[in-house]
Amino acid sequence: MLGVALLGSGRMAHVYGPKIAAHPGLRLERVFNPRIAGAERAADAYGGTPSDDLTATLADPAVDAVVIATPTNTHLEYIEAAARAGKPIYCEKPMDLTMERTERCLAALESHPVPFMLGFNRRFDPDNRALREAVRTGDIGALTFLMSWSREPAPPPIDYVRASGGYFVDATIHDIDLLCWIAGERPRKVYAAGTCLFDPAIGAEGDSDAAMTILEFPSGAMAHINNSRQCAYGFDQRLEAFGRTGMLQTRNHRDDPLIRWDSERTEAGMPLQHFFLERYDASFHHALDEFHAAITEGRAPSATAADGRAALEVALACTEAARTGRAVTLTD
Amino acid sequence: MLGVALLGSGRMAHVYGPKIAAHPGLRLERVFNPRIAGAERAADAYGGTPSDDLTATLADPAVDAVVIATPTNTHLEYIEAAARAGKPIYCEKPMDLTMERTERCLAALESHPVPFMLGFNRRFDPDNRALREAVRTGDIGALTFLMSWSREPAPPPIDYVRASGGYFVDATIHDIDLLCWIAGERPRKVYAAGTCLFDPAIGAEGDSDAAMTILEFPSGAMAHINNSRQCAYGFDQRLEAFGRTGMLQTRNHRDDPLIRWDSERTEAGMPLQHFFLERYDASFHHALDEFHAAITEGRAPSATAADGRAALEVALACTEAARTGRAVTLTD
Amino acid sequence: MLGVALLGSGRMAHVYGPKIAAHPGLRLERVFNPRIAGAERAADAYGGTPSDDLTATLADPAVDAVVIATPTNTHLEYIEAAARAGKPIYCEKPMDLTMERTERCLAALESHPVPFMLGFNRRFDPDNRALREAVRTGDIGALTFLMSWSREPAPPPIDYVRASGGYFVDATIHDIDLLCWIAGERPRKVYAAGTCLFDPAIGAEGDSDAAMTILEFPSGAMAHINNSRQCAYGFDQRLEAFGRTGMLQTRNHRDDPLIRWDSERTEAGMPLQHFFLERYDASFHHALDEFHAAITEGRAPSATAADGRAALEVALACTEAARTGRAVTLTD
Amino acid sequence: MLGVALLGSGRMAHVYGPKIAAHPGLRLERVFNPRIAGAERAADAYGGTPSDDLTATLADPAVDAVVIATPTNTHLEYIEAAARAGKPIYCEKPMDLTMERTERCLAALESHPVPFMLGFNRRFDPDNRALREAVRTGDIGALTFLMSWSREPAPPPIDYVRASGGYFVDATIHDIDLLCWIAGERPRKVYAAGTCLFDPAIGAEGDSDAAMTILEFPSGAMAHINNSRQCAYGFDQRLEAFGRTGMLQTRNHRDDPLIRWDSERTEAGMPLQHFFLERYDASFHHALDEFHAAITEGRAPSATAADGRAALEVALACTEAARTGRAVTLTD
Repeated sequence: MLGVALLGSGRMAHVYGPKIAAHPGLRLERVFNPRIAGAERAADAYGGTPSDDLTATLADPAVDAVVIATPTNTHLEYIEAAARAGKPIYCEKPMDLTMERTERCLAALESHPVPFMLGFNRRFDPDNRALREAVRTGDIGALTFLMSWSREPAPPPIDYVRASGGYFVDATIHDIDLLCWIAGERPRKVYAAGTCLFDPAIGAEGDSDAAMTILEFPSGAMAHINNSRQCAYGFDQRLEAFGRTGMLQTRNHRDDPLIRWDSERTEAGMPLQHFFLERYDASFHHALDEFHAAITEGRAPSATAADGRAALEVALACTEAARTGRAVTLTD
Repeated sequence: MLGVALLGSGRMAHVYGPKIAAHPGLRLERVFNPRIAGAERAADAYGGTPSDDLTATLADPAVDAVVIATPTNTHLEYIEAAARAGKPIYCEKPMDLTMERTERCLAALESHPVPFMLGFNRRFDPDNRALREAVRTGDIGALTFLMSWSREPAPPPIDYVRASGGYFVDATIHDIDLLCWIAGERPRKVYAAGTCLFDPAIGAEGDSDAAMTILEFPSGAMAHINNSRQCAYGFDQRLEAFGRTGMLQTRNHRDDPLIRWDSERTEAGMPLQHFFLERYDASFHHALDEFHAAITEGRAPSATAADGRAALEVALACTEAARTGRAVTLTD
Repeated sequence: MLGVALLGSGRMAHVYGPKIAAHPGLRLERVFNPRIAGAERAADAYGGTPSDDLTATLADPAVDAVVIATPTNTHLEYIEAAARAGKPIYCEKPMDLTMERTERCLAALESHPVPFMLGFNRRFDPDNRALREAVRTGDIGALTFLMSWSREPAPPPIDYVRASGGYFVDATIHDIDLLCWIAGERPRKVYAAGTCLFDPAIGAEGDSDAAMTILEFPSGAMAHINNSRQCAYGFDQRLEAFGRTGMLQTRNHRDDPLIRWDSERTEAGMPLQHFFLERYDASFHHALDEFHAAITEGRAPSATAADGRAALEVALACTEAARTGRAVTLTD
Repeated sequence: MLGVALLGSGRMAHVYGPKIAAHPGLRLERVFNPRIAGAERAADAYGGTPSDDLTATLADPAVDAVVIATPTNTHLEYIEAAARAGKPIYCEKPMDLTMERTERCLAALESHPVPFMLGFNRRFDPDNRALREAVRTGDIGALTFLMSWSREPAPPPIDYVRASGGYFVDATIHDIDLLCWIAGERPRKVYAAGTCLFDPAIGAEGDSDAAMTILEFPSGAMAHINNSRQCAYGFDQRLEAFGRTGMLQTRNHRDDPLIRWDSERTEAGMPLQHFFLERYDASFHHALDEFHAAITEGRAPSATAADGRAALEVALACTEAARTGRAVTLTD
């Protein structure tokens, strides 16, 4: 059993808290928040000792690993501290919103090498894994196209948008990481186009709430990403991989298993699962499995800091392409 | 071009009239009805000379074949007359509602052998043909189960029901013929159960508006037929064939080709095609093709009077089984 | 936490053992088998103290409840013993293969009233529950037809067949219970037809390996059950409920989430889950949930001994109907 | 009945020939080809008088309209001649491969105004029409995204590619016209990326055999086009329209109506229809319907020369964007 210190007590901490508590190989040892009340609430709910003392939390010998689920702009500080303390780190994505601070995260990990895993949870979703596995084992031959749909049920609050780094950095980055991971390569050129159709407040911030992106890979394969901040029928999450000998698709998830026929509609399902907490619940469990397994097996976790840097670089290039109307070429 | 005399000017005549007129190998020569006004209306719409004189109609040398689309209880008379006149006959199903009169139809055809085709149009539906073809060529190995769903949008008028011969003879007979044709054998034992759930007037006549039937074939294969006189989502017509190495299914037809997603339903289609005129429109064309081809090729049409007799025998056995609660054994 | 004694260490015990061990409200206290080696193996795997002493097992004050997962012909003995010992009982279905011994089970429970739950696990499958819930809340109006498909991947060993009570009692009984539970009523008349198409050894025993059944309910609704001991594409488990205002269907389960397109086939899935251990895994967990909840809430579990007796009575009537070719009428 | 002169006797002439012959309102009067042998072959097959004399063909008073199905680089010449002769023109798309010559087509039609229809047959496909109709009547609210997949079974001969004007002008132009027609607006900015993955000879010509395109519309809506010259499972043709209140999709077409289940695959269809002649057969009939109806009703056909110019302008912009890596802005 690995003792875990959970840093943070906001939304993502409430995603990880119960999953750490329920994990057979993890023990929620401490919950840290600079404001003790938040730490206490999370500890009451999921266990562990609440603390507002970072140094003591990281120094605790019962703490074998750290899960960082704090606001993005604090990740760098906590990564540096945990790395200095020699504790393996699971960090919610993204590491940071800027390349400069992201590089500092990687530098900290280079100075104090500890196992580090970035929470690209969609890689651990069983459907996405099955698609990647089938692509990588040659079920559809050499890859031609990848397509990813990520349409969210409703735009987030404008305060969230302001702090998000922009739509491509906040949302498209998930698809970017997922598609590069499936393709097994990084794009050499990207183009993106954004529009604001749902919430004028988002447009007023200079941001988009719907976007299309094209990634061009060195192999010649290409990817299309289809993002929307609004979706009437739930959380639309699909992948399509088109290769020389075939095509693979994943399906959307509904909570209701029934096919419904009536005088209005036939072969109908109910709306999709609401949002990522429902759709990707299992993926967070599996991501913690990977973190646990990597530590206990003494190997590096499969979603690395370098993966996070690479995805951010592409997301920032998309942002620039959407702004300038020019494809952005990426160097190795 | 074969000159055709269309007998009748009711509902089924209005199904066949335009299809004969449009058929590249058929020419609508005469429309007969003992009440001339009906014949005139049909002739106005589809062409041909109206007539209330059966003898003259059948004696006309321009008439190469006869399509009988009159009320069921007149089929025997017209089959006898057309056979005597030596004209090939296409007769809307059933030949008759009783075994005794059906045998007289066959006797007439034996005395005056002319090409005869019974209008089992569902055999000529492309989906049903494809399923039969796949079954017969071994796509699913030896047959275990056949299932047929026939659910109509709404109960017919009670006058129709009274003259129909009962639900099994009127409706189930379609499924019986289709399944026997697919299986390539006749059942040795049948059981059926009827219920009245939609229109109490049907129950008051001692008839059913929903029924389940089991056919047991000599090979050991079995069939289930699922009939309802009411169906909220349109005309439900499906087949399922289950064999040793696989299963085949046909799909329902909708006029609307779109898949619809909204805040109420996902992956939805619109309701199914309304009723048999829409769903089986093509099958009537293909049935006339077969009639035309058989005559011009000098061979017997593929849906015979004996097939009609066999189906009626099974339908009557279903009626008896539903009445007595005992399976009825059929002899060869 | 309820301490559980698991009786048995065969196949079903290995289904329940790990689920009891993992259940948050249950504790595997003892594993009983008259042959101690079996008990030891199960206890090694899942925990609890192995024992070959039934009296001591049932007398243990740490044992709050008993899960009977022994061969069917021993259920009566263990139900009687556990009831006398005052311990709540979860008994794998069926209670017994004969009405006479089933009545003795009920008599034992009447003499020594303890909470009793029969393991009709399919009632606890989320898909089946969703369909029942939708039917009961009126999503499709008054019920006309229920249909259940249960097709197993391959025939069981002939020794299993010999001891099974026959196909209807062994297999159809699942569908019978499920459909009666959904319909909310018991059939008043049943008909069934069996055939032997897959394993001649089964036919040599006078048993069937494929069967069709019709149940007629007092409300006028009817049900069709479609059973096969062999299925090329996996474990085919579907329900269809057809009512006055619509239809509901459940889908088969595949382990592979992908839709596959290639030069041979399009929109294809991989074969279905292999058999009931895979398809109904969740249902066993949920059944234990219900058992645990009923005991801790002091109420009767929802799948009762009377339900088991009713289903057996119908299954035996199916057996008789298949033998005699006559529908069997059931009295209240 | 309108008398039609069919110009050309190549592949597309063999598409139009039988459809003109079968059309109830059209009569194939003349077949023109500068090489008389080709005209004779087509006339033998479909009717009409063969001719290698353009002037005589156009001067024939029995010729009420002209269908141009000749190589693209001859369209201008025939449009000019037919317009001068005052004959209504149906011209296979594209009018020409260059903007300069396309403008000359429009100029000819301005000098000699005759009814002119460009053969954008996909607008007349029933599925595409249904999707547009649903979009335009507000079924999914304001449009956010349109997506079009056009994947062909196999790359064309390299000679075809050389004369095609490039992949965007040859193939993407179909999707461009279709999506603009559905959206009801022309894009203000386009980006495209091409790759060569299937046939190196195509790449050696500087052309692509797979491409992704983004169109940005003035309304803020965007479109993605997904083109491939190779597709293992047949001719993949899909549309997706995503709007504020819902989504609409069209399905691919298969010739085989069966759903197939076996030990390898479940819920599978056979491969898709082979190519556009199969998939869009009906659309050519409907396009001729529109041509016929427009002429007889004295109105302009719905797919205009200006539509063709607009689509070509966008396709050329895509070509430039793919070459330069910069989005191309289009002016009104």
